[in-house]
Amino acid sequence: MPVETIDRLAGELQEEARRVSAEVDSFFARLLEPTGDSRERLYEAMRHAAIGGGKRLRPLLTVAASRLFAIDRERALRVGCAIEAIHVYSLIHDDLPCMDDAELRRGKVTVHKAYGEAVAVLAGDSLHAFAFEILASSATHDDPWVRSDLVLELARAAGPAGMAGGQMMDLAAEGQGLDLPAITRLQQLKTGALIEYSVEAACIMNKMQPDARTPYRGYARNIGLAFQIADDLIDHSGDEAAAGKPTRKDANAGKATFVLLLGEERARQQAGFLVAQAIEHLSGHGSEADLLRAIARFAIERDH
Amino acid sequence: MPVETIDRLAGELQEEARRVSAEVDSFFARLLEPTGDSRERLYEAMRHAAIGGGKRLRPLLTVAASRLFAIDRERALRVGCAIEAIHVYSLIHDDLPCMDDAELRRGKVTVHKAYGEAVAVLAGDSLHAFAFEILASSATHDDPWVRSDLVLELARAAGPAGMAGGQMMDLAAEGQGLDLPAITRLQQLKTGALIEYSVEAACIMNKMQPDARTPYRGYARNIGLAFQIADDLIDHSGDEAAAGKPTRKDANAGKATFVLLLGEERARQQAGFLVAQAIEHLSGHGSEADLLRAIARFAIERDH
Repeated sequence: MPVETIDRLAGELQEEARRVSAEVDSFFARLLEPTGDSRERLYEAMRHAAIGGGKRLRPLLTVAASRLFAIDRERALRVGCAIEAIHVYSLIHDDLPCMDDAELRRGKVTVHKAYGEAVAVLAGDSLHAFAFEILASSATHDDPWVRSDLVLELARAAGPAGMAGGQMMDLAAEGQGLDLPAITRLQQLKTGALIEYSVEAACIMNKMQPDARTPYRGYARNIGLAFQIADDLIDHSGDEAAAGKPTRKDANAGKATFVLLLGEERARQQAGFLVAQAIEHLSGHGSEADLLRAIARFAIERDH
Repeated sequence: MPVETIDRLAGELQEEARRVSAEVDSFFARLLEPTGDSRERLYEAMRHAAIGGGKRLRPLLTVAASRLFAIDRERALRVGCAIEAIHVYSLIHDDLPCMDDAELRRGKVTVHKAYGEAVAVLAGDSLHAFAFEILASSATHDDPWVRSDLVLELARAAGPAGMAGGQMMDLAAEGQGLDLPAITRLQQLKTGALIEYSVEAACIMNKMQPDARTPYRGYARNIGLAFQIADDLIDHSGDEAAAGKPTRKDANAGKATFVLLLGEERARQQAGFLVAQAIEHLSGHGSEADLLRAIARFAIERDH
């Protein structure tokens, strides 16, 4: 690819990422308006966690994938916000003292540090329920088959066969030396399932049956792992200011990571290989897939 | 109503409650089969919480309400199990040390006592996701409009405008003297919303628009409050063996309850009044509503 094309794509990606971030923020600001009653602290905690911060990778993926099928951007964004609600709830619960006991997240104090543990549990639970309310609302799609299928697959991706199951594997792995297949499986559940869904959701909005969604899920599976390796590399490098959270935590906790298992150099190579594979899955598409290609390419060329 | 009729209804209710309980247990046993991997502890925790125990009031209500419209029992039961999954997740999270710090639930140790806090958080989150997966599955209903609407209303009933919001109100009320309107609103969110949904779900399966669901929601709202008053009376009486959990907890924590606000005698009267109102909402129905009438009648004539 000529250098000018790469530069142009990098610029477009940056612009689209900024736009999606702003739109996600304003979506949550509308959803989480002050209640004026004794639930206010709960809504404040949700706003603290959901507004401002994060790369918004998942909504960006849904918006980018929806370009493949010329799906209405507003709808894609609503689905992206439902996915982000699940992601944010999982961060709140994962940060709890009984889990990772984290003090910083996205450059801010964690929800339980700011609002107490009980409110943090409830804020996570509330965002979890909101995700499904958003998807099942007729504003998200006028075809109830699409709404119902969006819910079904998100519930699978978020539940014990997906994200929650991966988090359990992570808990069970503490102090145990996982090998490469085990850590790959763990990450595919813990973070991969939701990233995969972010792309699959566009296929569902395009009314595609499960078989036809396979290459798009393949793209997402590859970049999900590439992102995880990039995260491990950032964690390994130890730059806390760039990461917005404490680094070297996994290594210090004795957790296996891709970087610890493969070494920095081979981890970097593996991430590059996954990105190439991801882009290969899009070979049936023309320029409408450029944004997805750019996300894959820049997935590993980042410092936070 | 003649004494023989009351006796017959009591017998039928008891039999149906037993049947629903057994069916809910076997549903969860199938859903939560051992995984054979490192998620096993999570599934064990879910089985501990979801199988065996509880009155299964919510699935019983859905099955009873589905009789009004001659809805397939198997489908009503699946919806009832989705609701019970939400109820059980909320009990797991409410029992956490940072919330009610409870040691006993349904006559067993609480999930965090048996499996640790982290697994308890994840078990709640997993059951939460399962609820929506069950509703959105085509086995629950072949009409996607019904599935999508079942999801939408359950998400509302479980989220911050319902159950989770009520739990927040309860946290905020600690040490504060709530008055009768405030405690009524708190309970309508905390427990009422899900009980109301248990009956509304049958209306949704019957493809009724929101307006037409009003009397059925009214029935459920009344018995929800009656149940809460009955719970308060049991808690007040202090019989821990019958309750299956420590009693007088609310009173000892300085929380306002209907019994503390009204006194035992007026609380009993109020519960009776609510039951009469609930039954009045069913006046358009014949014997197909007998089970719902029996549930209302016996809501307050119980010791656990």
